[in-house]
Amino acid sequence: MPNLAAVMTAIDTIEVQERPDPVAGPGEAVVAIETVGVCGSDVAYYHYGKVGPFVVEGDIILGHETAGTVVAIGEDVDNVAVGDRVAIEPSTPCRDCVQCMAGRYHLCPDLEFLATPPYDGALVQRLAIQARNLFVLPESMSFEEGALVEPLSVGLWGCQRAGLRPGDRVLVTGAGPVGLLAAESAKALGAASVTVTDIADARLALAARHGFATERSDAPGSESFDVLLECSGAPGVLADGLARLAPAGRAAVIGVSKVNAELPLHTLNWNELTISLVSRYQNTWPLAIALISSGRINLEGVHTHSYPLDRAADALTVGATDRDAVKAIVYPQRVGD
Amino acid sequence: MPNLAAVMTAIDTIEVQERPDPVAGPGEAVVAIETVGVCGSDVAYYHYGKVGPFVVEGDIILGHETAGTVVAIGEDVDNVAVGDRVAIEPSTPCRDCVQCMAGRYHLCPDLEFLATPPYDGALVQRLAIQARNLFVLPESMSFEEGALVEPLSVGLWGCQRAGLRPGDRVLVTGAGPVGLLAAESAKALGAASVTVTDIADARLALAARHGFATERSDAPGSESFDVLLECSGAPGVLADGLARLAPAGRAAVIGVSKVNAELPLHTLNWNELTISLVSRYQNTWPLAIALISSGRINLEGVHTHSYPLDRAADALTVGATDRDAVKAIVYPQRVGD
Amino acid sequence: MPNLAAVMTAIDTIEVQERPDPVAGPGEAVVAIETVGVCGSDVAYYHYGKVGPFVVEGDIILGHETAGTVVAIGEDVDNVAVGDRVAIEPSTPCRDCVQCMAGRYHLCPDLEFLATPPYDGALVQRLAIQARNLFVLPESMSFEEGALVEPLSVGLWGCQRAGLRPGDRVLVTGAGPVGLLAAESAKALGAASVTVTDIADARLALAARHGFATERSDAPGSESFDVLLECSGAPGVLADGLARLAPAGRAAVIGVSKVNAELPLHTLNWNELTISLVSRYQNTWPLAIALISSGRINLEGVHTHSYPLDRAADALTVGATDRDAVKAIVYPQRVGD
Amino acid sequence: MPNLAAVMTAIDTIEVQERPDPVAGPGEAVVAIETVGVCGSDVAYYHYGKVGPFVVEGDIILGHETAGTVVAIGEDVDNVAVGDRVAIEPSTPCRDCVQCMAGRYHLCPDLEFLATPPYDGALVQRLAIQARNLFVLPESMSFEEGALVEPLSVGLWGCQRAGLRPGDRVLVTGAGPVGLLAAESAKALGAASVTVTDIADARLALAARHGFATERSDAPGSESFDVLLECSGAPGVLADGLARLAPAGRAAVIGVSKVNAELPLHTLNWNELTISLVSRYQNTWPLAIALISSGRINLEGVHTHSYPLDRAADALTVGATDRDAVKAIVYPQRVGD
Repeated sequence: MPNLAAVMTAIDTIEVQERPDPVAGPGEAVVAIETVGVCGSDVAYYHYGKVGPFVVEGDIILGHETAGTVVAIGEDVDNVAVGDRVAIEPSTPCRDCVQCMAGRYHLCPDLEFLATPPYDGALVQRLAIQARNLFVLPESMSFEEGALVEPLSVGLWGCQRAGLRPGDRVLVTGAGPVGLLAAESAKALGAASVTVTDIADARLALAARHGFATERSDAPGSESFDVLLECSGAPGVLADGLARLAPAGRAAVIGVSKVNAELPLHTLNWNELTISLVSRYQNTWPLAIALISSGRINLEGVHTHSYPLDRAADALTVGATDRDAVKAIVYPQRVGD
Repeated sequence: MPNLAAVMTAIDTIEVQERPDPVAGPGEAVVAIETVGVCGSDVAYYHYGKVGPFVVEGDIILGHETAGTVVAIGEDVDNVAVGDRVAIEPSTPCRDCVQCMAGRYHLCPDLEFLATPPYDGALVQRLAIQARNLFVLPESMSFEEGALVEPLSVGLWGCQRAGLRPGDRVLVTGAGPVGLLAAESAKALGAASVTVTDIADARLALAARHGFATERSDAPGSESFDVLLECSGAPGVLADGLARLAPAGRAAVIGVSKVNAELPLHTLNWNELTISLVSRYQNTWPLAIALISSGRINLEGVHTHSYPLDRAADALTVGATDRDAVKAIVYPQRVGD
Repeated sequence: MPNLAAVMTAIDTIEVQERPDPVAGPGEAVVAIETVGVCGSDVAYYHYGKVGPFVVEGDIILGHETAGTVVAIGEDVDNVAVGDRVAIEPSTPCRDCVQCMAGRYHLCPDLEFLATPPYDGALVQRLAIQARNLFVLPESMSFEEGALVEPLSVGLWGCQRAGLRPGDRVLVTGAGPVGLLAAESAKALGAASVTVTDIADARLALAARHGFATERSDAPGSESFDVLLECSGAPGVLADGLARLAPAGRAAVIGVSKVNAELPLHTLNWNELTISLVSRYQNTWPLAIALISSGRINLEGVHTHSYPLDRAADALTVGATDRDAVKAIVYPQRVGD
Repeated sequence: MPNLAAVMTAIDTIEVQERPDPVAGPGEAVVAIETVGVCGSDVAYYHYGKVGPFVVEGDIILGHETAGTVVAIGEDVDNVAVGDRVAIEPSTPCRDCVQCMAGRYHLCPDLEFLATPPYDGALVQRLAIQARNLFVLPESMSFEEGALVEPLSVGLWGCQRAGLRPGDRVLVTGAGPVGLLAAESAKALGAASVTVTDIADARLALAARHGFATERSDAPGSESFDVLLECSGAPGVLADGLARLAPAGRAAVIGVSKVNAELPLHTLNWNELTISLVSRYQNTWPLAIALISSGRINLEGVHTHSYPLDRAADALTVGATDRDAVKAIVYPQRVGD
């Protein structure tokens, strides 16, 4: 049985190639990948070949939002069994360094992360990975929901970084998939209210269907907030959001602009704000699965487009061409459908 | 228009009496009381004349779980208007002392608390109180739900005291109204799982209908937990619960036994547990109202018995006689129904 | 007995004027002011007539770093007595608003602060103020040390805002009085190491005499740090300091630049830094007095220049002309010395 | 060169035996042990053969408060070099489990701890241990001070567990070595005041020489406290100390009684206290070394008795016979002196 992968061989170029059949080493499992969500970072690698300090050199397999079925396990694996349906955490830390031992494995300098150079990702039919990265999905959860655990994790951890407390009034700037899932996270963790802003009416409409208050970014309301979850990455949005925080307000910078942020700290300081930067997430898979499977997180309308493995390139570009696209999912087990 | 009250005039004795019509002073409002839930402390005052350091001397009006309609406001009131349906926070702190200024108004040594001697409570038709104690109910919330904000607050604050973090596995010991609402609180604040124990099958059945895992206290399971919310107040339950906590586990002692707790700290210390005592709550009304009105808290099956004002005594005793009783509510505007 | 004050009557203009003799109202005390340290904000008001949102309109008395002797008390004062030597906290909050009740009186929107328009300050012989703002000095502490409690408070609270933990490696940028006292604060609160940077060699020499590692800002070392206390307010220093923080590093922005900060959040986010803005301080007087009087804070070399009341203008300008000036202190009881 | 050890071969029995010369494996170092402080747990093993769940079976080498000189290093060691004088952390965690990865390596279920069965301790001339357990002593620190890093760590971590905040008023119950070092810890971390209680006048006298307020336990004062560090382990002392805490007070249970604690939670709950159990410490060596070497911790009078290796039994018993004994130190390189 061949193990096909969608390989990025050059900027804006994906080829389906056959890869060696993976073997489960000690502590590892092999997962038949069922779903792979497309993330903005996948798109950035595809078009620009880099994200932050990470530069693509040579071929790479993209995709890190993923779920599948365990098809083999190695020695010393007891948290999953063959046949288990699992969501996959893409971070593999060294478990030995100062950061790992401080409870911050996501800041491990030797973190291996799916689809972050030089590591390959999940747009492949079968993937070997540490079994500890696998979390069994309850029957009620689909593989699509399993893949969405990763972007939901971004929102959940952003809330943690913002020091979200039950009862906070939360402003989410940016209503793309990350913003929407950050808003859902805030609600599931006890926010008293959640307001979402964007400049795209279609995105705001989806946020409204999820029950959130919405505002156009260019026509902001006057309410003030305790917490800002900046998810747009657009220049200026962070400063605008900070200006709406109440005294002792807290912000998490989830969306990252490519340019320097210009912040009027000399006026914001009177409100004694706290600005927390965010790098991915940690320990969120069990929480995310519990929240999704118990109905505390609503994922409706997030998954909008589906593609077989050989149309991964389309999945990577649909966001730029279809304004109704929220999240495209690739199905590696489907080829040539 | 008379202002009738159910007055406790002696142990196990309630008389309906007419009280002066209250006037709204500056910063105050008068509320026509619609609902008053019966709390275990009301029952204790009724039967024993004391709770902890608080001793009934002379007549007292019981009841502190309450909601109603604003019928008058005094000067300098801008958070409520006549006609507003409101839930009432029973705590009026001095707003001036060390505890108040430290963000701990619930520990104010001069706290005035409804139905805690020497202060009267809410089993009265019209009550004057600081308008800041009033929180407007959204249309979707009933007066019964408004009265349940108070016991829900006990659960929400207990979670705060326990240092509940999203993703925690929570054990709630005691499935009475406080335990059930503590379980709901834990769920609404992001607990990964909630297990409820009791010795009464009816109570466990209600907890199961709320979607919680249940165990009989006398046949405990083997799972371990991150957080214990002790809500039974029964001797020994705290120690049993602590023994089930994982390393770094945290407990909030919400239910209070009348006798000293006997705790094997010399064995529990290896797990480095934290035991947090709890005194009522603070700043929970807006949160509780947001959670109830958005459907994140399920109050189904909590309110089981209803009484007019002149049957307040029955409301205070039904818990002892009817094993299906969870929460009795008195309706002060109804007399002689 | 006249009550002379150094009154700022126009930009760069101080006149000694007689003011009414203050009377101690209920809860108040009158303090004979012995020492007033000159702060950068005093200098800014003197030269520019404004600091942040606060604009001088009409006459104002400057000075808010101050200590003196209680000469009268009003009714209901029991924390100080006539004859007590006291340090004065310049913040008088409303004790009633949301911020005050949340344990954040320093963010009270109605805060009255000495020498912040429209409120007069301490360059006066006798001042009436709430007795709660007064903290008795132990015999071992001088009035000069009493006045330094205020700038030390800035450092102590900055450490709190930075989330300083015992064992942290701390970088303090800026070795003026605020930076030096922030460094002393960090040491007194358990920092493992403290490194101070500046561009002025004299300031670095003083920091070195206090036992801190020093670096010239323009020739930084390569060590990394857990905490940054930015005390220079110079453009670019914050960004430079953030770049030296280790993963999960925390910064407090104590010095405030007049221009927007330009921060490369897209590179800093990988280290998941936290940036906390700072607005003055809260609840630091008892701590500061305990630390100074027990020798845990070293104030040596901070007080460099002394002036009688009628030379307050010289005190306000010496910092610009004498590179060895650290902190000038005015003695209001001395006139024409 | 023989490698002599003081081996506990039976209850109340120590024999000097020759042990194999240790070799430094990868990541390991061999340390020539210079100093070993005697801890209460060593005494308990010696007399009773058990401490908590740990039971001595067969021979064991006691001693875990220790410092020495590196005499060999294995591969992949870069934090120490041959000739370095080092303090030794006795905890070797697995660095892989849930507790280790959560930043709580001290709660690792597979923790290997010197002199805790089945692991041997430091009463030996040369010991192989992971190099990561070694922390270089600055020249200013003696080997005796190096050995005291361990009991000081108990105090430092106890303060952390108690949530000690700068400015807290701290009560330390028990003035033995642990209590005295806990008091020093509280002071070094910013406590506003520290009061120490004991029933032994000699111990109180030492605490007074360290500058702490003292009280006889049987004649307590009336002051109230924010933090309790219970270091006596005597029955009833914890309950007495809790009764003296102010609202929102926090206690760390450092001393562990052999019997159940009987706590009146039903009266303590009104003050909403927090009781934190303590299991050893984590990450304290660099902090402790920084505090000792900078003079922020005063160790004067702690080391009272000295013994060569072959008199280890005397070191283990002197505490019971000499009321002036605080801490006995054994010098393994000295035999037959």
